[in-house]
Amino acid sequence: MYTVYGDLRSGNCYKVRLLMDLLDLPHRWRHIDIFRGESRRPEFLAMNPNGRIPVLKMPDGNCLCESNAILFYLGEGSRWIPSDRLERARMLQWMFFEQYSHEPYIATSRYWITLLGEAERFAREISERRNGGEAALKVMEEHLQKQDFFLAQGPSLADIALFAYTHVADEGGFSLSPFPAIRHWIARMEALPGFRAMEQIIAQDAE
Amino acid sequence: MYTVYGDLRSGNCYKVRLLMDLLDLPHRWRHIDIFRGESRRPEFLAMNPNGRIPVLKMPDGNCLCESNAILFYLGEGSRWIPSDRLERARMLQWMFFEQYSHEPYIATSRYWITLLGEAERFAREISERRNGGEAALKVMEEHLQKQDFFLAQGPSLADIALFAYTHVADEGGFSLSPFPAIRHWIARMEALPGFRAMEQIIAQDAE
Repeated sequence: MYTVYGDLRSGNCYKVRLLMDLLDLPHRWRHIDIFRGESRRPEFLAMNPNGRIPVLKMPDGNCLCESNAILFYLGEGSRWIPSDRLERARMLQWMFFEQYSHEPYIATSRYWITLLGEAERFAREISERRNGGEAALKVMEEHLQKQDFFLAQGPSLADIALFAYTHVADEGGFSLSPFPAIRHWIARMEALPGFRAMEQIIAQDAE
Repeated sequence: MYTVYGDLRSGNCYKVRLLMDLLDLPHRWRHIDIFRGESRRPEFLAMNPNGRIPVLKMPDGNCLCESNAILFYLGEGSRWIPSDRLERARMLQWMFFEQYSHEPYIATSRYWITLLGEAERFAREISERRNGGEAALKVMEEHLQKQDFFLAQGPSLADIALFAYTHVADEGGFSLSPFPAIRHWIARMEALPGFRAMEQIIAQDAE
């Protein structure tokens, strides 16, 4: 059985959990409290020397890091990865866009504002990430005005990767009101069979 | 024939060119001068709404963006992508590491210091990227002390992606003197059959 080390409030961890739920993959979830330094301890660094969550541990003890690489590993052979070569590369294009042009602005702002609750202390940093986050949302909006999901063929890992932090963008100070196509895409994602929201999983795990 | 739109002084563009040279793929190279705003013009944004280089244009006019997605597309079916599922995901792990934990620190500092020549003006930004860049190099050093390339099986796209900005890290103010395993890996990369250095390609294209 797989074991995932992560924190579900992190979009990078949630996206892995969401795919596992959609694929009905049995696994154990081990909560890592980064605020208590648990991702910097020797036993965690042995799994990921880069000290970041999530980490996927295989039944044989092998570990895999980087949320989008984990998605790719878990998604191979499923309908979440297109079989066409160019479409598969386009999916990766959006996943690299997510990690380079989206996450460092929207997720990082959300971390300071909502997870740390330190919006005032990080006011300059948050302000510096404003334009980048808006630019990423504009690129997404423009694309989703033309098609229902990031790939023309339908839902893929690109949607899961981008959904994770976009649906909680307001917690990073980014309103989705000016982005109707993004809001409609979020509704389509939430209507997928087997979909579970971040809050829903957190509440259920807490029971 | 493929057309690549980019600037060879950008590691993200050079890595695409390096793979094309290693695979002996015929292509046209179109220089995009980002300092003259050429990546923000309508005809460029029609290829990549995110306004970034490189862009790969297919013979049929289809475009693909994000350097590491382009590497994946071009590398499919070659020895640069492992056939084993876990190794393939590990390769992507290092490519996402490159874009998230390496490029934003080392490439960005190099951009300000060497390409813009504005080290003083961006002193605060450069200083803020110091720790992140050092951390990325430490993770690489530790890994390369154990094996010759990022994957145990030998050279892969992960090496090409990470080589691009690491071999010019000094231009971003990051000395490789404290990282002997990285320096030996760079020498191994430069000894690969068909390898061409960034400066070598720039000089040859200028002829």
